[in-house]
Amino acid sequence: MEQTAGFNYGIVDEKLKEACGVFGIFNPHDRDIDLARITYFALFALQHRGQESAGIAVSHGRGISVHKGMGLVSEVFSDTNFDALKGKIASGHVRYSTTGSSTLANAQPLVVRYHRGSMALAHNGNLINACEIRDGLEKQGTVFQTTIDSEVVANLIARLQQDSIEDAVKKALEQVKGAYALVIMTNDKLIGVRDPNGIRPLSIGALDGCYVLASETCAFDTIGAQFVRDVSPGEIVVIDKSGINSLFIESGARKALCIFEFVYFARPDSVLEGSSVHMARLEAGRQLAREHPAEADLVIGVPDSGTVSAIGFAEGSGIPYSHGLIKNRYIGRTFIKPSQQSRELGVRLKLNALKAVIKGKRLVMVDDSIVRGTTSGQIVQMLKEAGAKEVHVRVSSPRVTHSCYFGIDTSSRKELIGATHSAAEIREFIKADSLGYLSLEGLIKSTGLSAEDFCTACFSGRYPMDVPKEGDKYLFEKY
Amino acid sequence: MEQTAGFNYGIVDEKLKEACGVFGIFNPHDRDIDLARITYFALFALQHRGQESAGIAVSHGRGISVHKGMGLVSEVFSDTNFDALKGKIASGHVRYSTTGSSTLANAQPLVVRYHRGSMALAHNGNLINACEIRDGLEKQGTVFQTTIDSEVVANLIARLQQDSIEDAVKKALEQVKGAYALVIMTNDKLIGVRDPNGIRPLSIGALDGCYVLASETCAFDTIGAQFVRDVSPGEIVVIDKSGINSLFIESGARKALCIFEFVYFARPDSVLEGSSVHMARLEAGRQLAREHPAEADLVIGVPDSGTVSAIGFAEGSGIPYSHGLIKNRYIGRTFIKPSQQSRELGVRLKLNALKAVIKGKRLVMVDDSIVRGTTSGQIVQMLKEAGAKEVHVRVSSPRVTHSCYFGIDTSSRKELIGATHSAAEIREFIKADSLGYLSLEGLIKSTGLSAEDFCTACFSGRYPMDVPKEGDKYLFEKY
Amino acid sequence: MEQTAGFNYGIVDEKLKEACGVFGIFNPHDRDIDLARITYFALFALQHRGQESAGIAVSHGRGISVHKGMGLVSEVFSDTNFDALKGKIASGHVRYSTTGSSTLANAQPLVVRYHRGSMALAHNGNLINACEIRDGLEKQGTVFQTTIDSEVVANLIARLQQDSIEDAVKKALEQVKGAYALVIMTNDKLIGVRDPNGIRPLSIGALDGCYVLASETCAFDTIGAQFVRDVSPGEIVVIDKSGINSLFIESGARKALCIFEFVYFARPDSVLEGSSVHMARLEAGRQLAREHPAEADLVIGVPDSGTVSAIGFAEGSGIPYSHGLIKNRYIGRTFIKPSQQSRELGVRLKLNALKAVIKGKRLVMVDDSIVRGTTSGQIVQMLKEAGAKEVHVRVSSPRVTHSCYFGIDTSSRKELIGATHSAAEIREFIKADSLGYLSLEGLIKSTGLSAEDFCTACFSGRYPMDVPKEGDKYLFEKY
Amino acid sequence: MEQTAGFNYGIVDEKLKEACGVFGIFNPHDRDIDLARITYFALFALQHRGQESAGIAVSHGRGISVHKGMGLVSEVFSDTNFDALKGKIASGHVRYSTTGSSTLANAQPLVVRYHRGSMALAHNGNLINACEIRDGLEKQGTVFQTTIDSEVVANLIARLQQDSIEDAVKKALEQVKGAYALVIMTNDKLIGVRDPNGIRPLSIGALDGCYVLASETCAFDTIGAQFVRDVSPGEIVVIDKSGINSLFIESGARKALCIFEFVYFARPDSVLEGSSVHMARLEAGRQLAREHPAEADLVIGVPDSGTVSAIGFAEGSGIPYSHGLIKNRYIGRTFIKPSQQSRELGVRLKLNALKAVIKGKRLVMVDDSIVRGTTSGQIVQMLKEAGAKEVHVRVSSPRVTHSCYFGIDTSSRKELIGATHSAAEIREFIKADSLGYLSLEGLIKSTGLSAEDFCTACFSGRYPMDVPKEGDKYLFEKY
Repeated sequence: MEQTAGFNYGIVDEKLKEACGVFGIFNPHDRDIDLARITYFALFALQHRGQESAGIAVSHGRGISVHKGMGLVSEVFSDTNFDALKGKIASGHVRYSTTGSSTLANAQPLVVRYHRGSMALAHNGNLINACEIRDGLEKQGTVFQTTIDSEVVANLIARLQQDSIEDAVKKALEQVKGAYALVIMTNDKLIGVRDPNGIRPLSIGALDGCYVLASETCAFDTIGAQFVRDVSPGEIVVIDKSGINSLFIESGARKALCIFEFVYFARPDSVLEGSSVHMARLEAGRQLAREHPAEADLVIGVPDSGTVSAIGFAEGSGIPYSHGLIKNRYIGRTFIKPSQQSRELGVRLKLNALKAVIKGKRLVMVDDSIVRGTTSGQIVQMLKEAGAKEVHVRVSSPRVTHSCYFGIDTSSRKELIGATHSAAEIREFIKADSLGYLSLEGLIKSTGLSAEDFCTACFSGRYPMDVPKEGDKYLFEKY
Repeated sequence: MEQTAGFNYGIVDEKLKEACGVFGIFNPHDRDIDLARITYFALFALQHRGQESAGIAVSHGRGISVHKGMGLVSEVFSDTNFDALKGKIASGHVRYSTTGSSTLANAQPLVVRYHRGSMALAHNGNLINACEIRDGLEKQGTVFQTTIDSEVVANLIARLQQDSIEDAVKKALEQVKGAYALVIMTNDKLIGVRDPNGIRPLSIGALDGCYVLASETCAFDTIGAQFVRDVSPGEIVVIDKSGINSLFIESGARKALCIFEFVYFARPDSVLEGSSVHMARLEAGRQLAREHPAEADLVIGVPDSGTVSAIGFAEGSGIPYSHGLIKNRYIGRTFIKPSQQSRELGVRLKLNALKAVIKGKRLVMVDDSIVRGTTSGQIVQMLKEAGAKEVHVRVSSPRVTHSCYFGIDTSSRKELIGATHSAAEIREFIKADSLGYLSLEGLIKSTGLSAEDFCTACFSGRYPMDVPKEGDKYLFEKY
Repeated sequence: MEQTAGFNYGIVDEKLKEACGVFGIFNPHDRDIDLARITYFALFALQHRGQESAGIAVSHGRGISVHKGMGLVSEVFSDTNFDALKGKIASGHVRYSTTGSSTLANAQPLVVRYHRGSMALAHNGNLINACEIRDGLEKQGTVFQTTIDSEVVANLIARLQQDSIEDAVKKALEQVKGAYALVIMTNDKLIGVRDPNGIRPLSIGALDGCYVLASETCAFDTIGAQFVRDVSPGEIVVIDKSGINSLFIESGARKALCIFEFVYFARPDSVLEGSSVHMARLEAGRQLAREHPAEADLVIGVPDSGTVSAIGFAEGSGIPYSHGLIKNRYIGRTFIKPSQQSRELGVRLKLNALKAVIKGKRLVMVDDSIVRGTTSGQIVQMLKEAGAKEVHVRVSSPRVTHSCYFGIDTSSRKELIGATHSAAEIREFIKADSLGYLSLEGLIKSTGLSAEDFCTACFSGRYPMDVPKEGDKYLFEKY
Repeated sequence: MEQTAGFNYGIVDEKLKEACGVFGIFNPHDRDIDLARITYFALFALQHRGQESAGIAVSHGRGISVHKGMGLVSEVFSDTNFDALKGKIASGHVRYSTTGSSTLANAQPLVVRYHRGSMALAHNGNLINACEIRDGLEKQGTVFQTTIDSEVVANLIARLQQDSIEDAVKKALEQVKGAYALVIMTNDKLIGVRDPNGIRPLSIGALDGCYVLASETCAFDTIGAQFVRDVSPGEIVVIDKSGINSLFIESGARKALCIFEFVYFARPDSVLEGSSVHMARLEAGRQLAREHPAEADLVIGVPDSGTVSAIGFAEGSGIPYSHGLIKNRYIGRTFIKPSQQSRELGVRLKLNALKAVIKGKRLVMVDDSIVRGTTSGQIVQMLKEAGAKEVHVRVSSPRVTHSCYFGIDTSSRKELIGATHSAAEIREFIKADSLGYLSLEGLIKSTGLSAEDFCTACFSGRYPMDVPKEGDKYLFEKY
């Protein structure tokens, strides 16, 4: 009933970090198709990319209608919302809950009116020169109402007097540095763009003669669309009544897909650059077994993200796999803090060890990554209390040593245990009997792609473009 | 729990019409004062000026925090909101529910970041050249995210490179035509502005050494502030650590306070231009009795707005006054539609006739205005069914014949019964035994001010500035 | 969305005190009428009798459906609720917010299943032997789930094996002492009962061939029903397909309508025992002028309840009446506490003095009653600060000296200023220049009824039946 | 904000079917422990047993406080609720969403006041003679306000005048037939009861010197309690200041734990009668491979419940296991219906096939049970569309042929595909290449317990007590 929006305006930089999912659909036919509802189901499939806020915008010729809200897709939309969302083009967005200060004002798609009419923008990624550009635009008299990159992009586009919107988009994005998968919707066009490095994924699909854009192919499967192809790095895909056309952002940039999409971020049933995410994770487990074998009785995974690599490890090592930890499926996002007496309850609420499986066993415990180390340490302890004789931790990706500037929320570098501690120190911190990280080469090999395809900066520090100096920067946080 | 925002972007013009209340407070002292809470109570006192949305913004040196929501002040704010609203300057806004399409995106204060820092704007009134200016700004590359005038003003200010914010405000407003009472807040200043005609009211008060701005003086009484003076037409009042200073918008405009503030809009306990609203309404009733006497046994008012003029009419005519209609105080804003069997239930839910008072009597029924005539007709019928022998309707303002362009929501001219029907026809339509409207001269006289002080355009068609040609324009709607 | 119920079970007695509104309607025809919707509108008209919770139950032959909730009628019901509330008999209830511990478990109508089928009870009043009866029933093995009298009555009825439900109701109520206006609904009957003293009101109406029962006649006016007659003290009205029949509770009790219904509780447009509440309040003011004249320039009332008696006082005294205090119509039920700096803000949020009216005047200020005295004192102070030279307080009812045991929430006797202080002391406490209470004789005379018709216990201590000894008992609290 | 309760009273029988989780904790120490908060976390661990409503009651010496609501534990409780829930004994309940007609009135614990004081009841199971007993009690004058078995039990207990509450409980339950795990709380005692057959589980734990009762041992792990022992069939465990004591319901009943707790209902990390649920499911898969081998390339499970048995099948058959279906973790409980164009979207929203794994493969697909067959058929189709050459369905439990009368919601027998179709017909219906069900002997063997320990009625029709004749009865529904 009550609708509120509150945002702290002064402190801006932290909010620019985000990870999101985007979607768009264009109906070239005369017959009516309920695009908003299809977008809704597609956002369900992309929900893992962002649980903070969700929005759907629809272009109906005379303008653009939008409904946005805080929370999960299922919480933001009810049947009545769809009555006001009828049209021939739709776009949608889910946003990641980075910190508590997330607000409705920052929910997307961002809808603006400008000299060509109305425009809706949905953005996944992070622009590393957004602040610079914003400062420049402010000096020229622009006002900003949000702290999201989409607003910067919208202003750049609006200031350009090119012949066509797509030319303006091209020109605008040539001023921008960073990672972006963008879905832009106007009165009569749907435009998809991927940054010249192709850091964030974006694919094209087809559904009953409609064109579809989505961050991940799993969204196509859910709505019953066919995968057509990935948007190329630097490509601007323009969809309108006349069909689909492309132009390209000029740039000497090399391809650099975020390798962490394979490690953790993408859904396992998605296909990135032709490679199955599930298969890559399975192979990473096999490779890990080769690189860091262990004398053990049983391989277990930390659910859900460590399970598949654990199965791969089992295959690779010949040690049997078993479920060893049960995850509570009902952990809500808001909840009551334990009282003083039960502070250690944190991990136990989410995970429980299968004593009957673990007791007396030497375990290999596979996880996809270690961020701060605290949770890993608690799980090792839980397993030992459940009777494990040894716990050998194996991580199906390298040590995270560097901050991400391209749209994944990382904590400040000093909170990133991999940046400040050696593997030996981390092993000690989490009280594991041994610890092994997959090598970067092993990880790349597991994807079936080559080192040239990836941004591996969080593991290697080799950024695909110049990045700001390390001040107070960010790490991965998953739990 | 769920926070949602939805707005229809295409159809813009209707949303520009609004009536609102604004408030601001500046604490020059070192000691902490809970300005947000004071603003909250002041907005309570201004709630009659707008029930659609409410917002409070606070400037805390490093930027501006804001909390806004749909609904009444009491619904939008809870105790927890105030923790995030600490600072040395605060401003607030209530907005009128004109139509169902009101949305959170249009709630105020509007907070923007621009080249000087942060700025919050709260606006009461209507700019008649807002569309023109917006079109011009769009051509120069500006994007708009709302349909409120404040966004136009914010962009004008942001584009100016004057030495000071106040000079930029002056320069910006010299491009603007229409009615506005503006409260602008920056990191270190609170600025109040009234348009050169002074169409909308704005007053200055003092509270424990703090400076206060409010649409109506009743807000001062509620928070315990002292009235200092009205802001003059065209005056820009700048409040900062150094005190209070003024500059003026250059313009040859004459003073033209909206006379409808006296008729209906302002709270009776407010004082406008030195005149008590209550006293003016009482005197309007007396004057009405002189202009349109009636042979009757009893004078009654249509509660709440017609009651005081009815008492005045009773005094002027010597006919005794009585309560004759009881108003239900619990009519919520959202409610269930009557079923087929009880369609005529509408007015009966809100009003009930006091049969014991009315039966067998010849009545004078005083109301402050007639908009569409439907409600007046239903009340006359209710009184007759309750046993009234005659019902002589007296209206304490002239016939509303012209649309308002200055911030009061009027329906299209063809729905305005006064614009399309003579008094005789209206009398017939509402089935009154006689009908008399107060003359414009009588109304002006009742205020104690002179004709030169007022905008009387809705009664006279004499607008204080050039207005757009009559297309699909607007009337008063009160019930 | 979330539905919650919480109740504190241990502390019971305080919750038994309540004041409520009841309604029932029976459709004997074959044609469908949306009884739940009519009940909804009737509850709107009775909302002043209880704002804590609301409920509507409908009997549909196979059983009874009910929807109840905390809050105002407009908050509890939405259009979708009515789909599940179809049937030939309906009843409704609104409950008064006595204290913060009110809960959904205590909302009415109470629906139970028992040996005759289903039964819904809605109750206004208070049984003074409810605890005794409950203790007795508990000893015989009965369990209780709420703290409302209706549950006691339902159990009494269910344990009786009389031939008919009405005989069981009669027999059950003969065990009960206290005040009650009851609406009972079964699968095929609608039953209205008033206690043998007739302490709480209950009237019969007719609407399109349907029979209607309501606490006050204003509900009939709202739904367009015709008043037929009051239910007599001790009468059990039984409405079914065959028509309307009566039986009577045997008792030597004298009639004793609560006189406070005339003073404050009933809506002015209601008619009690043939007397108009409005007319009685007007006459009380006239009588007050005769009993306690004042040398003054102006008579004002404390809105809303003091206004009519103030007009009466003006008529009686020849001193002109004026509005003198303006009431804020938007005070929500939940709100933010003032901070330290503005603790005295309480009354100012609700009321504001009309300085232009009051300044330099000697005032008569009329209110309907004084409970704790605190509010009255704050209003006197507000008037003096607004420039009143003298404030002569006149109260249109006698001093409240005794607790009510019959369904009106009174605070403990020691908080009741009238019980512990003389009129002279109260005058001093509220800092009035003079103070006059209407005499009990004057009050009775103003109603047009005779002393024998009333319960005047709160003024006189003469209870119409034996009541418990004064322990921690209750006073009137109105503001 | 709004609190509502609505229930349809006429249609009663369907509501008596339910499956739930119960919990209780008793603090014998003087030091304060936040029992409500511990109960909250325990209910989180039991959430899989019921997602419809949740409640926590606390006994504080003077009575019992309770907070209940519709929805998940995380939705019903917020931090403020715990302030009102302080005491020395606590109990909690989660209830299963059987049908849409679930209501707040039926939420548990049920709190009543009766001759011994206050009592809270939380019940898991189903009484098959509840209607009979209720009819009998109604004839003796009892009223019922809910449709839950707990209310019947509470009335039976309250009517008994035994020396102690435990004797009354024993006497009351000797009149009752069916399945029950009960947690009863009084002012000073916590009582746990399991029916003479022990159909529903209930275990005793210890936490920091407090006694704990829970439906499943996984709740002990979550709160950090130690498992002590299971409550025995027919045992009444009485916990008070003096410690823990037992008495027994007299009955010749044999032990008959619901075997479906092993198949699907219990959490895998729980231990029932000393057997690990996870281990039993793993072994069931191995046994299934022996009973129904398949020529195939890959074994996959239907997540989440089929996964472990699939791993067991892989181990038993030597065919490799792989994830083959990905489950969307964000499917909310309320959601938007697909439009006409996408009706087949149902299963795709929840599950997606891993094409890269499945393509060209002959699959064994393991699920724990088949209820209506519709979902199984859709999954088989999804796998074939993803490129599976063959799909051999294996079910890790026997065909469900008979209704459950003991607390698990089953649809009417005619909707139960196993009751009306042979395995061959079901294979054809779901379009599987082959279909094999685990034998009952195989299932029993997998648990490590013996046939005499179980109720296997839903598979065998051999009920552990006389049950009502098959009218319109109930089947399992899981998806």
